[in-house]
Amino acid sequence: MRNTFGNVFTITTFGESHGKGLGVIVDGCPAGVTIDERFIAQELQRRKPGQSKITTQRKEEDAFEILSGVFEGKSTGTPIAIVIYNTDQKSKDYSHIADKFRPSHADFTYHEKFGVRDYRGGGRSSARETAARVAGGAIAKLLLSQYGVSIHAYVSQAGHIRLEKHYSELDFSRTEGTIVRCPDADAAEQMIALIDETRKNRDTIGGVVSCVAQGVPIGLGEPVFDRLHAALGHAMLSINAVKGFEYGSGFEGVKMKGSEHNDAFYREGDKIKTRTNHSGGIQGGISNGEDIYFRVAFKPVATIMQDQESVDTRGDSAIVSGKGRHDPCVVPRAVPIVESMCALVLADYLLLNRSSKI
Amino acid sequence: MRNTFGNVFTITTFGESHGKGLGVIVDGCPAGVTIDERFIAQELQRRKPGQSKITTQRKEEDAFEILSGVFEGKSTGTPIAIVIYNTDQKSKDYSHIADKFRPSHADFTYHEKFGVRDYRGGGRSSARETAARVAGGAIAKLLLSQYGVSIHAYVSQAGHIRLEKHYSELDFSRTEGTIVRCPDADAAEQMIALIDETRKNRDTIGGVVSCVAQGVPIGLGEPVFDRLHAALGHAMLSINAVKGFEYGSGFEGVKMKGSEHNDAFYREGDKIKTRTNHSGGIQGGISNGEDIYFRVAFKPVATIMQDQESVDTRGDSAIVSGKGRHDPCVVPRAVPIVESMCALVLADYLLLNRSSKI
Amino acid sequence: MRNTFGNVFTITTFGESHGKGLGVIVDGCPAGVTIDERFIAQELQRRKPGQSKITTQRKEEDAFEILSGVFEGKSTGTPIAIVIYNTDQKSKDYSHIADKFRPSHADFTYHEKFGVRDYRGGGRSSARETAARVAGGAIAKLLLSQYGVSIHAYVSQAGHIRLEKHYSELDFSRTEGTIVRCPDADAAEQMIALIDETRKNRDTIGGVVSCVAQGVPIGLGEPVFDRLHAALGHAMLSINAVKGFEYGSGFEGVKMKGSEHNDAFYREGDKIKTRTNHSGGIQGGISNGEDIYFRVAFKPVATIMQDQESVDTRGDSAIVSGKGRHDPCVVPRAVPIVESMCALVLADYLLLNRSSKI
Amino acid sequence: MRNTFGNVFTITTFGESHGKGLGVIVDGCPAGVTIDERFIAQELQRRKPGQSKITTQRKEEDAFEILSGVFEGKSTGTPIAIVIYNTDQKSKDYSHIADKFRPSHADFTYHEKFGVRDYRGGGRSSARETAARVAGGAIAKLLLSQYGVSIHAYVSQAGHIRLEKHYSELDFSRTEGTIVRCPDADAAEQMIALIDETRKNRDTIGGVVSCVAQGVPIGLGEPVFDRLHAALGHAMLSINAVKGFEYGSGFEGVKMKGSEHNDAFYREGDKIKTRTNHSGGIQGGISNGEDIYFRVAFKPVATIMQDQESVDTRGDSAIVSGKGRHDPCVVPRAVPIVESMCALVLADYLLLNRSSKI
Repeated sequence: MRNTFGNVFTITTFGESHGKGLGVIVDGCPAGVTIDERFIAQELQRRKPGQSKITTQRKEEDAFEILSGVFEGKSTGTPIAIVIYNTDQKSKDYSHIADKFRPSHADFTYHEKFGVRDYRGGGRSSARETAARVAGGAIAKLLLSQYGVSIHAYVSQAGHIRLEKHYSELDFSRTEGTIVRCPDADAAEQMIALIDETRKNRDTIGGVVSCVAQGVPIGLGEPVFDRLHAALGHAMLSINAVKGFEYGSGFEGVKMKGSEHNDAFYREGDKIKTRTNHSGGIQGGISNGEDIYFRVAFKPVATIMQDQESVDTRGDSAIVSGKGRHDPCVVPRAVPIVESMCALVLADYLLLNRSSKI
Repeated sequence: MRNTFGNVFTITTFGESHGKGLGVIVDGCPAGVTIDERFIAQELQRRKPGQSKITTQRKEEDAFEILSGVFEGKSTGTPIAIVIYNTDQKSKDYSHIADKFRPSHADFTYHEKFGVRDYRGGGRSSARETAARVAGGAIAKLLLSQYGVSIHAYVSQAGHIRLEKHYSELDFSRTEGTIVRCPDADAAEQMIALIDETRKNRDTIGGVVSCVAQGVPIGLGEPVFDRLHAALGHAMLSINAVKGFEYGSGFEGVKMKGSEHNDAFYREGDKIKTRTNHSGGIQGGISNGEDIYFRVAFKPVATIMQDQESVDTRGDSAIVSGKGRHDPCVVPRAVPIVESMCALVLADYLLLNRSSKI
Repeated sequence: MRNTFGNVFTITTFGESHGKGLGVIVDGCPAGVTIDERFIAQELQRRKPGQSKITTQRKEEDAFEILSGVFEGKSTGTPIAIVIYNTDQKSKDYSHIADKFRPSHADFTYHEKFGVRDYRGGGRSSARETAARVAGGAIAKLLLSQYGVSIHAYVSQAGHIRLEKHYSELDFSRTEGTIVRCPDADAAEQMIALIDETRKNRDTIGGVVSCVAQGVPIGLGEPVFDRLHAALGHAMLSINAVKGFEYGSGFEGVKMKGSEHNDAFYREGDKIKTRTNHSGGIQGGISNGEDIYFRVAFKPVATIMQDQESVDTRGDSAIVSGKGRHDPCVVPRAVPIVESMCALVLADYLLLNRSSKI
Repeated sequence: MRNTFGNVFTITTFGESHGKGLGVIVDGCPAGVTIDERFIAQELQRRKPGQSKITTQRKEEDAFEILSGVFEGKSTGTPIAIVIYNTDQKSKDYSHIADKFRPSHADFTYHEKFGVRDYRGGGRSSARETAARVAGGAIAKLLLSQYGVSIHAYVSQAGHIRLEKHYSELDFSRTEGTIVRCPDADAAEQMIALIDETRKNRDTIGGVVSCVAQGVPIGLGEPVFDRLHAALGHAMLSINAVKGFEYGSGFEGVKMKGSEHNDAFYREGDKIKTRTNHSGGIQGGISNGEDIYFRVAFKPVATIMQDQESVDTRGDSAIVSGKGRHDPCVVPRAVPIVESMCALVLADYLLLNRSSKI
């Protein structure tokens, strides 16, 4: 609840962009997981601002410190606390937004909900909070890797530029080779051009991140409210700027007939497989051993470099001016966040499933 | 967790289609809510099979009994238990599916997860479980109505037939007047024709249910993992056959520019409003007082009246034959379920929000 | 929370003494547990009123029905719902207590907390609610028995009559042979005489139930807040009329020196054992393989057959008169409740512990 | 669960005595609470080692840092993260205990549960973890003080020296004036002499901490499993070295008759009061507006300055020698911990109670 995610393998995140630091407590990680700090650093690096011309030029040093829960390179079964300090905290002038509500941000709703608001940098609604999730997700990935599970997300759409290829036609090893994190060179080029143009127009656009989890054991997922895809959807929809989630055939599947959509079972060696995978690897809310596949829609970034109509905290009309360094499109940096949240769900459900049978 | 949904206002459902009964425990309902049993009956009636030619002809008597938690017509603050007995339990012949895995059902995954399976009627993955949700959702609606919140869902797509009108152009009072639960007469007619034709072809199709919640107070939603739309998405994705969820601008919003997508604030009397509502009534995960709006995608029903390739529990090839009485399209009956899950989330978050300020 | 107990293996109870019925949802029970209905009936029988001259003469038929979660004699991994119907519901005259607050009952606090109150028979604070716990506890015992865990509670004190023997000197098979549920014949006789005399004086007395769990695997218990004894204490203190909990050396251990109190380790075959067991089988909150041992204090029953000073709902002075059939001492019937709550904690922690290591 | 305590107002603690630091995340604290850092420092000071001749001479600098959740001196409704860094981390020689199980410590059980163990200083079972609880408890106290609730704990027994006076005869303002934290000068002197003598004998003794909460609103507590005293008991039993909990009349009340034990209601002005308070301020699990009163038993500290019989990780016989600086009696330093855990329960239940009525 609130700032905790998960049931057995959980993360609790804390921190704003402008306090002393932010971080994550990973609780419920079994003892014996090899904790590779370089891997955590790499993951944070993928989310970091300032990576390329199509991301924000803001600099954040995501230096992290593990305060607890790891001994001699292994998890001990106790809470793993990771802190990321805020270094870029110089007392800036926030007077231009302190008492104004930025359109399509959380300013107004936080103000109303809590009565008090840390107006510096968006507080908890700042995308910087996702650094804590990526650190926690890295621990989940390390756990999953010991069970042969791998997760690959990539940008499949930026604005109207959509990668039409099925994920099975893609080479995931190429995702990190492009600054937009799309493994298809042609599509990547078009996306980058579009984002760059949008940036020059002082505007922003949305995009879609697709994600594939492979090697997931059969049986993960709880029958009714906590179906595996419901947990994945919850996780994805909790990421800043996300507006939609679909898995397997998704919204397109609506138009299909049952006779086309059903995934026929067949046997391959000692395994039961399906001939198609419209189910996206999940049937009745439970993983069936096929690839898990889903798509996540991100809206255009709300901060634009233009003047916008708004009101202030007194209810008077006000103009919000664009200022600062922001992403023209959030999806390239969202890729590791999507993977992290996916890893957190799978790690949690892997442990939950240990109590399904006697 | 598992068979419980919610944080403060919760439901726990139990029961399969072929045990003695199923039901719901509503826990955390504040004392003092007027409990109108006729309203609960009406809601169950909307979900019931056998309503029209485009739903399954199966008969289920959803007679319910409130065992506890209500005294002299008011909730007492203690758990409200509602039981719906299974009447249609004659010992049918299930030998045709007892040891076969129906394609795109939960048969295989349940078998693998639990090692044992109640093969009669799908067990917990049966859509009959949703009757318990509708009963619980009715309690949530009764609570919400005391706060001026109303919820309207309707069918906005069946197969390729899509209602293009914005919800503000619709008259929700007409939804129940059509058997497909689409408030637009023309679209309804086309949808009904398509579903009926599909049924005659012994096939099934998917659809979309849209939902609008009005009068929702500002401030509902938790900042990070439990954003209001993440809880709504989780709730919707937990409904049988759901493949996708989007709110506000959704997947289409991806193509928009920030300058088009942002919802400008302005003042109207003593209220702060937004000129557009691409946010779908939720900003930073918190309700902003505008209408909450979302769409839910349902796949074509997996049970079709045709022979299908599959395997049995020994892993041998097997043919699954269509048999029995099933829905050709799930969305008409899904409308009250979507509303119920929406009501449960809003009731829960209304109570959660009571502890946001001192 | 609220009416749910447990983390992974949970029970949710519902119902008052005067609605249509009460019951329990057991959620999280692994698939494959043999569910013996006769055993559940036996357990309920042990808690039932009217067993002997030293319990209330009130008759309750605890006929129960399993509505779901069991198929062909085995748990299926889905929620097990058990309903116990209230049969003795004739419309009695409650006018003598409807608007008065009985001393040391929950009447006043419920009235203040909820604003509305089901005054018939105490509502949720009625000891009848514990029947639902015993039904749920029976499922937990059935699970534990498959792991070799056994639980024995007994009455070790009634009023000032205290059984001084250590549990290792007792023959638990004799507990059910006495109406007071004390396995020592001499002590039992004295306790029965005292309770009977107290009853004749229209008064009540308190008592202590001791409990021993044997065969508990090493490793159950969570390090900090959910230490095994904290969960056991929580469970016991949630039983009606309980005023205290101690385990191992308990309050008496306070007077000991560390050099006396510490339990020296030694090896016996391939097992590590302790020479003494002041730890009560739990060290650092985690079971160490020795017998788990604790004691639970019950206050004298609040309902006495005497006139008592009180106030009514308007705040005016009022006399509450003793009326009806009540227990002169609660401990004989509390024995199966203590065992049930102990079983529920151990079953839950057994499953929780499955995720302690990779 | 696991390292989180509470339902709505929660703390999650992390950290061992020998990692980089430990700390607490306070989640669910409403916005608008005045956060006084000096008060947090004072509270930590009361728990700190090295305060007097009867506590351990070990030095720990409990310098803390608030990383998030506070803005301009007020809570913002977002998680408050407090980190306490470990300064005294010089690489000591732990070879004398690294592979031995100290009697009545958590060494053996952690080793068995997790397979891996941070042997330096006891890991999570170290009493140092309680510093995080005191920091979190300080926030809870600050919240409660805005509602007029005050909490006073004190040492009421050390070894066999027992303060016989009722709490109403004591002047709580004198508690901090004695190094043993007993507000009665005579008893304090005797306790100090006993503890000092025990320390000189290289041994340890146990004790009892009593606690009184005043000004608690009527209505806190949930009816069945989460009765207020069950939550308090859980909280207290989660503190290191605690062996028992009783409230109101406690274990002594067992010997009383109902006619003596019942607390008669009467009216005083516009308040309903009880003539006696054997209920300890809680009836039916819900606060009734009287003082809440409970007692907590602590065992003698397990670390003694003597040689003890044990085994090592290979199962071989081994001698554990006393070494280092340890408390001869834990209760003086336990007083602020008991208060903290009490404050955390009350703050949580205060918020929970906000959803009891419409």
